[in-house]
Amino acid sequence: MAGRPGRFIVFEGGDGAGKGSVLAAAAEALRADGFDILTTREPGGTPEGMALRALLLSEAGEVWDQGSELLLMTAARVQHMTRVIRPAVAQGQIVLCDRYVGSTLAYQGGGRGIAPALIRQLHADFVGDYWPDLTVLLDIPPAEGLRRSQRRLADTATDEGRFEGLALDFHERVRASFLAQAKDMPDRFLVADAAPPLASVQAHVLAGLRAWLQTSLTTG
Amino acid sequence: MAGRPGRFIVFEGGDGAGKGSVLAAAAEALRADGFDILTTREPGGTPEGMALRALLLSEAGEVWDQGSELLLMTAARVQHMTRVIRPAVAQGQIVLCDRYVGSTLAYQGGGRGIAPALIRQLHADFVGDYWPDLTVLLDIPPAEGLRRSQRRLADTATDEGRFEGLALDFHERVRASFLAQAKDMPDRFLVADAAPPLASVQAHVLAGLRAWLQTSLTTG
Repeated sequence: MAGRPGRFIVFEGGDGAGKGSVLAAAAEALRADGFDILTTREPGGTPEGMALRALLLSEAGEVWDQGSELLLMTAARVQHMTRVIRPAVAQGQIVLCDRYVGSTLAYQGGGRGIAPALIRQLHADFVGDYWPDLTVLLDIPPAEGLRRSQRRLADTATDEGRFEGLALDFHERVRASFLAQAKDMPDRFLVADAAPPLASVQAHVLAGLRAWLQTSLTTG
Repeated sequence: MAGRPGRFIVFEGGDGAGKGSVLAAAAEALRADGFDILTTREPGGTPEGMALRALLLSEAGEVWDQGSELLLMTAARVQHMTRVIRPAVAQGQIVLCDRYVGSTLAYQGGGRGIAPALIRQLHADFVGDYWPDLTVLLDIPPAEGLRRSQRRLADTATDEGRFEGLALDFHERVRASFLAQAKDMPDRFLVADAAPPLASVQAHVLAGLRAWLQTSLTTG
């Protein structure tokens, strides 16, 4: 993060962990604190990313090989990083992003079995080795996360059901990958137990973010 | 080509070299000879490739970084190779394909300046190092090719104008890359001067293809 006027914070976690709600609550509270916050998401985040997201959701019946899926996710990330994230951070904004390369390592790597080294190499070659300053990992047992996620899918028309139909062991591998990433770089991760009631998770994450930002912005 | 029941033949060349017409004439004549011919093209060739082609042509105003463009071209190629080219060749067909990784090396590598080693690495990692048995390279000075190509664009509604607007030195670099590829692997290339009248180019390429197929299919 040396040399970055702002900060790049990513929210990661399995389906049903509550990333979206926790991110939105953190954004609102940190804005009230006076921080200049930009919220964004992957896949999506740019017109090009939205178009690729629609393709990956197979709205027109496309069926993607897992290698193609990885290439498309990475292309969307190139667009998102160069046009949205990096310029905002360079201007001093605090960027809160829903999913980033950690999700690719977890879903395409841990879940689908693509070698993490290949995913990291693509990231280095194309996204320019641009990594988050901090990742907030919302950790939840997959069975519980999927229960919550299915409840939400039943309630609202959402397009996020792409991975929900996969077997529980897929989601166990996704979770294991997220936790391994956090273990590899403990000072770049804030791991929160996402099983408690949402308000309690939101408060816990917000307190952690405030403490991290204070330290990071005064020492960075 | 050892182990391939069929053959994979790619037609490459700069804009206006007449690839489409020469490929179509070769396909017709070789079918009359009794060969089982499949014609296909890039980008495109699969529903996924067509969708990516539409995105790359920026019909909805998308603007792609050159790295993203390379990732999308490669994703389209993964789909095309695994679902169309390799199965057809495995079943004994002679596949005639309009553009393949040689065009990526020429346009994204030579033209846009992406390192050819990176393009080759992506090809190895995702397309599985699947290369043509033979490449027919239609070579034409860019100034002449662009004159022909602009005449065709004026005559018909075509979506192939994506590179035509670029400066002549871009197309000179594309041509130099194609010729360097042919020089690197002379026994895998049939280089044809595409400046003579079309009928003469078609006859020359067809004669070369017939001779190559006879040798390749009896010794392969």
